[in-house]
Amino acid sequence: MSRFDDAAPNTLFKSLEKAEVGEALPATATLLDAAAFNEAGLIPAIAQQHDSGEVLMMAWMNREALEETLRTGQVCYYSRSRQKLWRKGETSGQQQRLKSAALDCDGDTVLIKVDQTGPACHTGRRSCFYIQLDAEQAAVTSEPMIDPKALYGA
Amino acid sequence: MSRFDDAAPNTLFKSLEKAEVGEALPATATLLDAAAFNEAGLIPAIAQQHDSGEVLMMAWMNREALEETLRTGQVCYYSRSRQKLWRKGETSGQQQRLKSAALDCDGDTVLIKVDQTGPACHTGRRSCFYIQLDAEQAAVTSEPMIDPKALYGA
Repeated sequence: MSRFDDAAPNTLFKSLEKAEVGEALPATATLLDAAAFNEAGLIPAIAQQHDSGEVLMMAWMNREALEETLRTGQVCYYSRSRQKLWRKGETSGQQQRLKSAALDCDGDTVLIKVDQTGPACHTGRRSCFYIQLDAEQAAVTSEPMIDPKALYGA
Repeated sequence: MSRFDDAAPNTLFKSLEKAEVGEALPATATLLDAAAFNEAGLIPAIAQQHDSGEVLMMAWMNREALEETLRTGQVCYYSRSRQKLWRKGETSGQQQRLKSAALDCDGDTVLIKVDQTGPACHTGRRSCFYIQLDAEQAAVTSEPMIDPKALYGA
């Protein structure tokens, strides 16, 4: 039981703005009922390496993927191109072990802290964010850790 | 001039997978022509505190907001609710100074490293990601640094 259990789904995140550290909150299932999955049923998930703080990638989760991730501790996304659950590393072996997950203030984004095996990026780079932009010019800032052919086969 | 200047927009990011650190790349404008803004003309922007590594928030940018951010060094988003440019801190005073920006491998997300003045979150918390989720239970993990009434007026 929590003092937020009677909040309607469309006002729950507003109510939680006043919640205090250590206070009882509604169950995760209730929060996910109220979370702002988009019109395709998806929420953006930001994956951050838990110890270094490096932001590794951004992908999408549907509710099923997020629940599986929380339940199993192995990160599962939803592939928009393949239109199915995407258990990170199922092809490449480069899995993400969940350390913690957090919704943001309006329940429309999730930040997951993970322990990433090897590269997160399909190019073989540790992070997907390797194309630095300045006002006029761009630059690549990292090299692959491993040849992507070795991750996915030639 | 770069060896990627002749790549068609729909294959540019694929071509850049082979780019090396220090190699000449197309101009930022060419990359933004090829970037995957969504059907509403927006791209998710993840804001990370440049020194601590804390992920502060996720918001959206249109091309104009991203170009202004790169040009001025002050972070500008696009507010989906207000349907206009949102110069972070214009009401609250809690600005974000840009340190660096990077597109991801497929050009559909931007990571910005910033120096955040005070709280990033409209609740007065440093980060928007304060609702921790476990499989069954949720918990709030941070308190406001400042009363939001002091940020926005009573």
